[in-house]
Amino acid sequence: MGIQLYGFWRSNAAFRVRVALALKQLPFEEIEVDLLAGHQFDADYAEVNAERVVPTLVYNGHRVFQSLAIMEYLDEIHPSPRLMPDSAEDRAYARAMALVSVADAHPLVVPRVRKHLAETFGADANAIEAWCRHWAEEGLATYERMLVKRPAAPFALGASLSVADICIAGQKIIADLHRLDIEAFPNVAALMKRCFELPAFAQAHPFEQAGYPR
Amino acid sequence: MGIQLYGFWRSNAAFRVRVALALKQLPFEEIEVDLLAGHQFDADYAEVNAERVVPTLVYNGHRVFQSLAIMEYLDEIHPSPRLMPDSAEDRAYARAMALVSVADAHPLVVPRVRKHLAETFGADANAIEAWCRHWAEEGLATYERMLVKRPAAPFALGASLSVADICIAGQKIIADLHRLDIEAFPNVAALMKRCFELPAFAQAHPFEQAGYPR
Repeated sequence: MGIQLYGFWRSNAAFRVRVALALKQLPFEEIEVDLLAGHQFDADYAEVNAERVVPTLVYNGHRVFQSLAIMEYLDEIHPSPRLMPDSAEDRAYARAMALVSVADAHPLVVPRVRKHLAETFGADANAIEAWCRHWAEEGLATYERMLVKRPAAPFALGASLSVADICIAGQKIIADLHRLDIEAFPNVAALMKRCFELPAFAQAHPFEQAGYPR
Repeated sequence: MGIQLYGFWRSNAAFRVRVALALKQLPFEEIEVDLLAGHQFDADYAEVNAERVVPTLVYNGHRVFQSLAIMEYLDEIHPSPRLMPDSAEDRAYARAMALVSVADAHPLVVPRVRKHLAETFGADANAIEAWCRHWAEEGLATYERMLVKRPAAPFALGASLSVADICIAGQKIIADLHRLDIEAFPNVAALMKRCFELPAFAQAHPFEQAGYPR
């Protein structure tokens, strides 16, 4: 039955899973759920994912959702190359770095939040853009402070890539979408550059997806 | 050196870690970081936690942050009782359920977001309350749909408690703070009741903490 990924070109969470699948060299079919058109609320997708968000991974018929849970699942069933470090302390740090994006910076800029700001506070496009830039910059600033304390060598957890790098790289995409200057965060910018030099990251970028409006 | 937890009575993320520590019968000292007074931005705490959020667990001098990373860390180094299920599929589902709160429902109602709504959109207390209630209800509705599809038996993942139950119970606290009627979500309400009948949950509730303003 193989692997299907319900995703969307713009989704940061779908990007993370595309990178993980590519690093593990697992071929997959991506099924587009147009979040901007609200197709995540269609009855047939609501049946696939009770939270009505992307991504959903379908692995031999088994559905897994939430990008961090999907990456950990893939790492458990296809452990080569590992996306989690060896020691409990480093695993905790990798997860914590991942969660700075997954649980703090990214949730504030997703479509449902932008829509609710418009509906509730009458926020126009400029105000929503400023909102997104604020939280994206907070995320970059946090990562910069972390990388100053524990420099990447060359990746966040050391010699090998981990879920931390994937999630930090995801914040590059948000920066791109909102035309932020990542050079203000030099350690973060260098790590992001290192990641996107790898095909697994470059080819997973939203602007490289079939659905990206050109 | 033992275990210290930098937390705050109101913090949902600190609640999760208090429950995990209690279930594993690990004694700890809680150090209050008053988020409403902005003490997470004090220079000495910024040195402890580069993201300037709570909780931070200090375990024999080693610092771990982000509540889900802390719970996974505790589960790896103190595996009894396990907070993660046995199979990769169930672990993925437990993490996904946890992330519905950790990555989607909870990040939208934290102090920095409420503050930014006031500063950016001039949101008054009523508007901020409505914002919090909206996202809290979205989280409850998601959990209800999930529990209808896969009923708790008696806990989210089956006979044993997991990180899923801890995070779902955390949404009860947000519901309490905003006086939401959880009975509109009967499967969720029943699971929350089951959790808070256990001392580990009841004693970790914000309203039971020393710092709660009475």
